[in-house]
Amino acid sequence: MEASDEIGMQTRNLLREKNVLAFNLIGSPGSGKTSLLERTIEKLKPQLSIAVVEGDIATTRDAERIARLDVPVVQLHTGGACHLNANLVHRSLSDYNLEYIDILFIENVGNLVCPVDFDIGEFAKVGVLSVAEGDDKPLKYPLLFRKSSCIVLNKIDLLPYVDFDKARFYSDIENIDSNLKVIEVSCKTGEGIGDWVEWIHQIQEQYSS
Amino acid sequence: MEASDEIGMQTRNLLREKNVLAFNLIGSPGSGKTSLLERTIEKLKPQLSIAVVEGDIATTRDAERIARLDVPVVQLHTGGACHLNANLVHRSLSDYNLEYIDILFIENVGNLVCPVDFDIGEFAKVGVLSVAEGDDKPLKYPLLFRKSSCIVLNKIDLLPYVDFDKARFYSDIENIDSNLKVIEVSCKTGEGIGDWVEWIHQIQEQYSS
Repeated sequence: MEASDEIGMQTRNLLREKNVLAFNLIGSPGSGKTSLLERTIEKLKPQLSIAVVEGDIATTRDAERIARLDVPVVQLHTGGACHLNANLVHRSLSDYNLEYIDILFIENVGNLVCPVDFDIGEFAKVGVLSVAEGDDKPLKYPLLFRKSSCIVLNKIDLLPYVDFDKARFYSDIENIDSNLKVIEVSCKTGEGIGDWVEWIHQIQEQYSS
Repeated sequence: MEASDEIGMQTRNLLREKNVLAFNLIGSPGSGKTSLLERTIEKLKPQLSIAVVEGDIATTRDAERIARLDVPVVQLHTGGACHLNANLVHRSLSDYNLEYIDILFIENVGNLVCPVDFDIGEFAKVGVLSVAEGDDKPLKYPLLFRKSSCIVLNKIDLLPYVDFDKARFYSDIENIDSNLKVIEVSCKTGEGIGDWVEWIHQIQEQYSS
């Protein structure tokens, strides 16, 4: 774990030096991480140079979806493991010319628990949740909320059809981190994607200045 | 891992001897495992004696939901770990008088990956998925489908509002295990719960005879 944290730190230093801003996207299977990336890349691509690292247990399906958007993508296979590790990510960076990348999105393995514990060299963690998962996630998985810089609450188009108590969701988050940024989006309708992209732009401007 | 499998085997032998049928429920956070248990217990309780082991990282929320149904429930905390282990489950059994239990439901930690690898002494694994998670889960998490005796596809009331290609879902499952039982349910409306409970009754009759 210590050696792994050390490699994560090396990755972060390397990315800092090359002025590459890296986000580590963490969420359950089916929370919409890849869909969020698709929407985000469409919006950011005209102004920024994007690359993606896709973490998956065994398939290349998500990387294929991203490759269609004509941005560089590397697929990492964990070979059964339930999270990306610092070493895998670090080695993948040699596939890129970091001089030409502004933002690197790292999509972790679909899992709300394990990925949170591993520093893979990101600048910031982003938690991705779907309203269909229920409003009790802050209560049940507080570590993700403590360690994330931003929570994307996805699939808000489903709100009329699911029992999701927003007041409770926000009040539980308030108890964990009252400054935590939460952005509601629907990758299906596009609602809220503008707010999310604006947040990325803000972070990117701070990071690059 | 070997020692853990050995304890799992001991649990299974003990439950076999006491004629207790144990199911290990595995699914993502928010797939509806606890809701499924609530619906199932309501239906089974008149005929069978039910007990529940709730696995969670830190909270007791799910156990509280089950306790309201007036069945014995033990809450196990994994202390951060992303799956139940055989030892925790084995020790929890001393809290029950197994002579009086017909069916033991063990709800694992919300996670599609890690719990699949750990034998906790169950007779059968049941995979719980929500249609909101998408139709690509068999492709991306094949091990769950290979190791489960039954897949419960939950939240079918959301089918009109999500992009879930049933044909693709079933065809991917067919490629993994053409005999795998899949039961579509909605814990919200109650649709399909009868089929699921009937499946449990069938297994229970085979197990007890």
